[in-house]
Amino acid sequence: MKKISILGATGSIGLQTVEVIEEHPDQFQLTAIAFGKNIEKAIPIIQYHRPKTIVVADHDIKEKLTLQIDVAPQHILVGEEGLIDISCDREIDLVVNAVMGSMGLPATIAAIEAQKQIAFANKETLVTAGHLVMEKAKEYNVNLLPVDSEHSAIFQALNGEDKKSVNQIILTASGGSFRDKTRADLSGVTVNDALNHPNWDMGAKITIDSATMMNKGLEVIEAHWLFDIPYEKIDVVQHRESVIHSMIEYVDRSVIAQLGTPDMRVPIQYALTYPERLSSLSFEPLDVKQLHQLHFQELDMNRFPMLRYAYEAGKKGGSMPTVLNAANEVAVALFLQEKITFLEIETIVEHALQAHRLIQSPDLETINQIDQETRIKIDEAHR
Amino acid sequence: MKKISILGATGSIGLQTVEVIEEHPDQFQLTAIAFGKNIEKAIPIIQYHRPKTIVVADHDIKEKLTLQIDVAPQHILVGEEGLIDISCDREIDLVVNAVMGSMGLPATIAAIEAQKQIAFANKETLVTAGHLVMEKAKEYNVNLLPVDSEHSAIFQALNGEDKKSVNQIILTASGGSFRDKTRADLSGVTVNDALNHPNWDMGAKITIDSATMMNKGLEVIEAHWLFDIPYEKIDVVQHRESVIHSMIEYVDRSVIAQLGTPDMRVPIQYALTYPERLSSLSFEPLDVKQLHQLHFQELDMNRFPMLRYAYEAGKKGGSMPTVLNAANEVAVALFLQEKITFLEIETIVEHALQAHRLIQSPDLETINQIDQETRIKIDEAHR
Repeated sequence: MKKISILGATGSIGLQTVEVIEEHPDQFQLTAIAFGKNIEKAIPIIQYHRPKTIVVADHDIKEKLTLQIDVAPQHILVGEEGLIDISCDREIDLVVNAVMGSMGLPATIAAIEAQKQIAFANKETLVTAGHLVMEKAKEYNVNLLPVDSEHSAIFQALNGEDKKSVNQIILTASGGSFRDKTRADLSGVTVNDALNHPNWDMGAKITIDSATMMNKGLEVIEAHWLFDIPYEKIDVVQHRESVIHSMIEYVDRSVIAQLGTPDMRVPIQYALTYPERLSSLSFEPLDVKQLHQLHFQELDMNRFPMLRYAYEAGKKGGSMPTVLNAANEVAVALFLQEKITFLEIETIVEHALQAHRLIQSPDLETINQIDQETRIKIDEAHR
Repeated sequence: MKKISILGATGSIGLQTVEVIEEHPDQFQLTAIAFGKNIEKAIPIIQYHRPKTIVVADHDIKEKLTLQIDVAPQHILVGEEGLIDISCDREIDLVVNAVMGSMGLPATIAAIEAQKQIAFANKETLVTAGHLVMEKAKEYNVNLLPVDSEHSAIFQALNGEDKKSVNQIILTASGGSFRDKTRADLSGVTVNDALNHPNWDMGAKITIDSATMMNKGLEVIEAHWLFDIPYEKIDVVQHRESVIHSMIEYVDRSVIAQLGTPDMRVPIQYALTYPERLSSLSFEPLDVKQLHQLHFQELDMNRFPMLRYAYEAGKKGGSMPTVLNAANEVAVALFLQEKITFLEIETIVEHALQAHRLIQSPDLETINQIDQETRIKIDEAHR
């Protein structure tokens, strides 16, 4: 029985993790959950699983929760401290880090230091502080088990292989909600247009990131850190159907790919069961005969400048990806609040990167400071 | 330095194995070769590599060879005895079994008993006597390293995985030279038409087998034995481009595929270097961005009855696949000699299977007897 804590339990990945756990009550036990403010979605999980510990965003939410459900207050923790607690709790075997944004960083570090298995869906953490996280992971000999479908695909395609034989990682990109629009078309698009992803059912932030192609940019940086591969060996190809989730070209030109229907529960479950696989009745098989056609094409960096910014920030390294990520998080939030247009997301990120003076090998404190400064500066400009 | 013997050195797989060896003189040494009658193709190999032992089909060829090239007669062996000798020679590390047809069987057994690494391209051996070969392989703890592109793909997709997690093997089929023809179109096709394979450059026998789809049928049976998978879990899908060489669906619905340009040297080299991979400058990379489209469709068993015969013979087991293979080998030879039409290949195989009374668990002697009887009967009917 694997005892699991989910950080970000009411988000898209969190809820799908709960589904996987519920399908296999003989394998998994949900021992702790953390969520922000979404009490409505949290209550059925708490009632069904009775987790030992619940972490919420603040004392206000804690109070509201205790009014609605019978949980002893000492079982409810608050904020970052709570997140860290259920990431390193002695009873926990595996931590699912599905927190959104770079706020998942301290919990990631805590889980690594406690040598937990970590199912990792918090890519912003690696983007913003990849060098620190991976250094820790190496020091404590901890594997980050990727949950992102692309990184899970790479992880699976690497299975049994020597990493030194990798010639190239090829991430596939569906193209997002606006893949068939020109740049001219993009000036008038709305939040609702952007949230309509053609293949994947995901949270709002990542769906917008897919539309701007920043999601693929963040994935490139995440892949760089997770698999210790230079940016020159990471490529992106547009693949409309999201059937091939990503692939590896080896030095002998042999390419290994992972395919499947677009269902996040598959990579989630793989991270939970690794190195084993578990049969699941609720997952739709990929009917290869019904595929008929798969399409591939080059991604145009001028059409999708955010991908270029991400490569550039990744290659410059140091504090640059922190700025990339913070600026993007704030810009996406502003767009979701309808305070800026879709194309202004790009402009905000571009300007933030241009204005930043690179700091090499920043420590955690410096990263936090740069992250905060970047957010405040953009927020203030859009009051 | 791996010391290699090639059985079938002047065939398509043999010659491409020689190419791989020549590209990596620091890794491989060609220590022995066997060929049938093709002195012309053998001479440059012998002159370049100076193999310690040469095996030829008969004394006549041996005499011709010694007249054309300076080799001491004691280094030239003859027939099956010679094949067996260079399959278990103490000096040899790896045996490439690229003999055509079931005549490769005794050498396969000898190589297994000598616990050699075996790069295996002699699928007829497994079709005709799979239960005996795999029993031996298990007894001597020898891995057959597949050279066929489909089986190499499956072997690579299995890397690092637990075989118990396999839900389904999906072999891809280009469709062969006549994939766009109806059955009505097939009545008038010639040998030259049939030898014109759309994707792969292979020997005559396998190219005809591709056109009749018997090749895929033999591969289904080969996969059954190599990977110890029931026929119900082996499927075939038509895939025109031969880019995905085959795939595995695991119990969690995750599919792992191996892709590449159609170049037999890639799976040959992988079998030679396994479990490592070797960089090769002469292999064309797969340019995913230039793929544009990949096509998939169901294979119609009525259009390609030979595939149905193979599944049926495989499922019946015992001596049935021996008859399937022997009848097919003779029928293809008769077609290549223009003694029968293309569609008569099917009729001959169908009738041979219908006429045969199944023997369960035949031993080697029984198999040889059935193999010979089947051939003689068909040959006599087509004098």
